[in-house]
Amino acid sequence: MIQGRDVVTLDTFTPDEIRYAISRAHAMKAEGFGMPLQGRALAMVFFNPSLRTRASFAIAFSSLGGTVIDLTAERDIWNLELRDGAVMAGVAEEHVKDAARVLSEYADAIAIRSLARHDDWAMERRDLVLVSFQKHSSVPIFNMESVLEHPCQAWGDALTLEEEFGDLRGRKLALTWVYSPTARPLAVPHGAAIMAAKLGMNLTICHPEGYDLDHGVLDLVQRNAREHGGTVRFTSDLADAATGAHAVYAASWGATNLHGRPDEERLLRSRHTDRRITADLMAKTQSGRFLHAMPVRRNVEADDAVVDAPSSLVIRQAGNRLHIQRALFAEVLA
Amino acid sequence: MIQGRDVVTLDTFTPDEIRYAISRAHAMKAEGFGMPLQGRALAMVFFNPSLRTRASFAIAFSSLGGTVIDLTAERDIWNLELRDGAVMAGVAEEHVKDAARVLSEYADAIAIRSLARHDDWAMERRDLVLVSFQKHSSVPIFNMESVLEHPCQAWGDALTLEEEFGDLRGRKLALTWVYSPTARPLAVPHGAAIMAAKLGMNLTICHPEGYDLDHGVLDLVQRNAREHGGTVRFTSDLADAATGAHAVYAASWGATNLHGRPDEERLLRSRHTDRRITADLMAKTQSGRFLHAMPVRRNVEADDAVVDAPSSLVIRQAGNRLHIQRALFAEVLA
Amino acid sequence: MIQGRDVVTLDTFTPDEIRYAISRAHAMKAEGFGMPLQGRALAMVFFNPSLRTRASFAIAFSSLGGTVIDLTAERDIWNLELRDGAVMAGVAEEHVKDAARVLSEYADAIAIRSLARHDDWAMERRDLVLVSFQKHSSVPIFNMESVLEHPCQAWGDALTLEEEFGDLRGRKLALTWVYSPTARPLAVPHGAAIMAAKLGMNLTICHPEGYDLDHGVLDLVQRNAREHGGTVRFTSDLADAATGAHAVYAASWGATNLHGRPDEERLLRSRHTDRRITADLMAKTQSGRFLHAMPVRRNVEADDAVVDAPSSLVIRQAGNRLHIQRALFAEVLA
Repeated sequence: MIQGRDVVTLDTFTPDEIRYAISRAHAMKAEGFGMPLQGRALAMVFFNPSLRTRASFAIAFSSLGGTVIDLTAERDIWNLELRDGAVMAGVAEEHVKDAARVLSEYADAIAIRSLARHDDWAMERRDLVLVSFQKHSSVPIFNMESVLEHPCQAWGDALTLEEEFGDLRGRKLALTWVYSPTARPLAVPHGAAIMAAKLGMNLTICHPEGYDLDHGVLDLVQRNAREHGGTVRFTSDLADAATGAHAVYAASWGATNLHGRPDEERLLRSRHTDRRITADLMAKTQSGRFLHAMPVRRNVEADDAVVDAPSSLVIRQAGNRLHIQRALFAEVLA
Repeated sequence: MIQGRDVVTLDTFTPDEIRYAISRAHAMKAEGFGMPLQGRALAMVFFNPSLRTRASFAIAFSSLGGTVIDLTAERDIWNLELRDGAVMAGVAEEHVKDAARVLSEYADAIAIRSLARHDDWAMERRDLVLVSFQKHSSVPIFNMESVLEHPCQAWGDALTLEEEFGDLRGRKLALTWVYSPTARPLAVPHGAAIMAAKLGMNLTICHPEGYDLDHGVLDLVQRNAREHGGTVRFTSDLADAATGAHAVYAASWGATNLHGRPDEERLLRSRHTDRRITADLMAKTQSGRFLHAMPVRRNVEADDAVVDAPSSLVIRQAGNRLHIQRALFAEVLA
Repeated sequence: MIQGRDVVTLDTFTPDEIRYAISRAHAMKAEGFGMPLQGRALAMVFFNPSLRTRASFAIAFSSLGGTVIDLTAERDIWNLELRDGAVMAGVAEEHVKDAARVLSEYADAIAIRSLARHDDWAMERRDLVLVSFQKHSSVPIFNMESVLEHPCQAWGDALTLEEEFGDLRGRKLALTWVYSPTARPLAVPHGAAIMAAKLGMNLTICHPEGYDLDHGVLDLVQRNAREHGGTVRFTSDLADAATGAHAVYAASWGATNLHGRPDEERLLRSRHTDRRITADLMAKTQSGRFLHAMPVRRNVEADDAVVDAPSSLVIRQAGNRLHIQRALFAEVLA
C-alpha cells in the first residue's frame, strides 16, 4: 500500500495508509517478522545528533535482517552545496545532488536528520537539506526529524494511542506547550497536530502568545481536520486545554518569529516557567493519558508524579518508535 | 546458570559461575556457536571512549547473529540527570531512569562504559552512572569498564590463565604497579585482584606507598580469598613480588587519595619511574607468564624483551576478551 | 586467485589478477552472491574521516553476511607509536604492532584510512601507518586510501571503464589536474595512473608545472606501461590532453614539493583557476567519458554541463566502488 514511498511528511499519507501501517506494526509485534530486508542497506545521515532516533531506526532496520550504515555529517567534513548551478569555490565540497545520487547507489533507503541551520524561519521552514535529498535520491527517503516534521514520532504516537483507545475519531487530544529552559524543535508538535487531524481527533492546541505553530502546518492541520471529521481549537490556558481531554501531549517548542534570536526567545520563554504538567492538571482530564516525545525535563516540563503515573505512556511511546519504524521499513521496501 | 544476570561486578558471581562461563568460552572456541542471538540487539553506551572494548564487544555480539547499536554520549548531547526527584532546569536534558527504560524497549541488553567524572574518590567509587542504569533498566547490563571494575577483562584474563595452567587454585599471581606518565583507571587491577581471590589463587599486590587499591575492593578481595582458599599479601618491592610467581600482571593505576588532583598525583608517580617489568625481573619467577590489559607503554611499563617474549600472554589476553564476552552474551541472553 | 592477499597497493597485483577481480564483480552484479562472509568481521580503522569510502566498504562487507566494526582513531585517543624499540613515555599509548596484533585477534580483515601526517613529502610518502599495520597484522589489510594510493577507487574505475569499453588496451585516458581551492590527496591520481599502465592504456598525464605525481609512483607507472603494452606521455596543456581521449579523469591534487607549506601551495594553485573541464573541452575528445572520484566541486573543477552529461560516469564510478569491494572481500577472504 505504501511500497516505494518517501516517509518525509505525513501530508502525503491518507488516513487509511496511516492506519494500515499501524495495523502492520500491531501484527508484527504479535506475530514476529522474519528477515525480509536481508541483503538490503539503510544509510542514516545525521546533520544533527540523535540518540533515541538513531537507536530505534538502526535496530528496526537490522532486526529485519538489513544492514545499517551510520554517516554523521559532523565536524564540517561534509558541507553540502544545496543551490543548483552554484560555482562551488567555497566551503561546500559536494553538491547534495551528488551525495544523494551516490548514496542511492549504495543503499536501498536513506534516512535523514536535519534540524535548524538558518537564522530566518521563512528560510528554515523550507527544510532544504531533506527536500534536496528527496529530490535527487533514487531510493525512498525517511525523515528522522527535520525542521518541520517528525513523522515517525507522530506515527509511533498514533500506534500508542490506538493501543489505548482503539479508533481515535472524536478522542480529545490536548497538545500543550510547557516550559523548558531550552527551545526544542517544532517537528514533534507539528507531527502530533497533523496526525491528530488526519485521524479525526478533536485537537486543542495550547500555548502562550508568540508560540504559534508554523502557519503552513496549521493550514494543513485545519484542512485535514475538515476532511477527516476532526476539530481544532486554540487556547492559551492550560487548565482549559486539559479539561475533559483523553490525552495531554506536552512539548516545549521555540517561537518561530524569534528564530535565530535565542536571547530574545529565552526572555519570552522565561515568562512562562509555570507551564508545567502537574497531577492537579491531569485530574481535570477524562482519565487522560500523558504523552511526551522525550527527553523530558522532569519537574520542569512535567512533574515526576505525572511522568511516572500509570496513565503516562511515555515509555510505550518511545518503544513504539521501534515497532512503527519496523513496519514502515518492511512495507516501504517490500 | 547465569541467564538474565547483570555482568556489572564479579562480586555477584560464584567461583562455579565464573568457571562455567570460562568452560563455555572454551567449548565455543572449539565447537563454534551458530547464531543464537539472531533478532536480538545490544545497545552500547559510551560515556568514555573505547576502542579495544568497543571492537571486542561489538564483534562478540554480532558474531552470534545479533545487532549492535553504538551510542556515544559525547559532546554534551546527552547529559543525564542521576538524582531522583531533581528539578531538571540545568544542563541535563534526560533522567537516567528514562534513558535506561527507553533503551530497554529497544535492546535486549545494554553495555555501559563510564569512567571518572568527579574530583572526589568517595563520590567516584559509587559508580553512579552504571549503578543507575542497572537500577532502572529492565534488560541485562554489561559493564564495559567502570570506575571500580572491568569484569569482562578479568574474566578473559582468567580464561587465558586457565588455558595455561588449568585449575588456578594455589597458583601465584603478582599484581604489580608499574610506572606510566599517565594514571590509568583502577578497574583492571581491581578486577584482576577480585578474580584471583575468587579462583583461590595466591595473590601478591605490589605497589609504591600511596597506591593502595580501593578499600572496599580490598575487603572484597580478602573475603573472597578466605572463602575460596586463596591468600593475599602486600609488598612494595617488585623483586619480592615477582619471586616465585607463576604470572606477573603489570598495571599502572592512579592514587585514589589524590583523585581529582592530577598535578599532585603526577608528582607522586614521578618518584617511581624505575618500576618497569624487565627480563631480569621475570627471571625471578617460576617460568612466569607476563600479563597486561593493554595498551602497554613499551620500555616504560615493561621492556620489549618482556612484552614480546614467548611467556607474554598479552595478545592472547586481548583475544580472549572476544571469546569470554561471546560466552557471556550467549549464556546471559540464552 | 587473490585469496589471503593484502589490498594495499596495485603494485602487488598482475593485470590478470586485476581483471579477474573485475570479472568477479561483473558476475556478482549479475548473479548475486549469497552470504559467504557470515561469521566474519571487518575492522575499519579511520585515522582520517571518510563518508563515501566508509559507506561503500561497510555495505560491501555486510551485504556478504559479515560484521563491520568502525574504529575512528580521532580526538587523540589512539596515538600509535610507529618506531620499533621506542621508549613510550610520550603521547603514544599503544604501539602499532600491538594494535595490529590485537585487531587481528578480533577481525578477519582490517581496513585502514590514513592520509597526511607529516610536513615533509619524503617522510609522508612512506605511508608508515598503513605499512606498519600491514607488517604486524596477521589478517589481510585493505587500503581505504593512504597517502600514496587508493587501490579500490582505481579498481572500481577500471570496472567502470571496462563496462563502457570492454578491453582497455590502447584506449586513451587523459588524467588531468583541475583547479580546486583546496589541495586534495594524490592517492586517486596515483591509483588511476598505475591502473591505466597495468591495463595497457595510452595514458596522458596533464598538470601545471609543480604538480608532478610522486616520482616513485611515476617509475611504477612507466615500468608497468612498458611491461603491459601501454604508453605514458606528459603535457601541461589541457586541450592537448583532451584531444582524442576516450576518457578524461579530472582530479585536483597537491604539490608534493610544497607539502606541509599550505600557504605557498595555495598561492601556486591560485595561478591555475582556469583549469576546469568544460563542454568545449570534452568536444575535443573521441566521445570521451568524464571521470571523477568525487566529491566534485561543480563549476570549479568541472562544469555542470560535463558532470551531468550522459557521457559522465561519475555516479557509476561511485556505485562500482561497492561492487569491486564486494568482489575483493569475497575473493580475499574466500
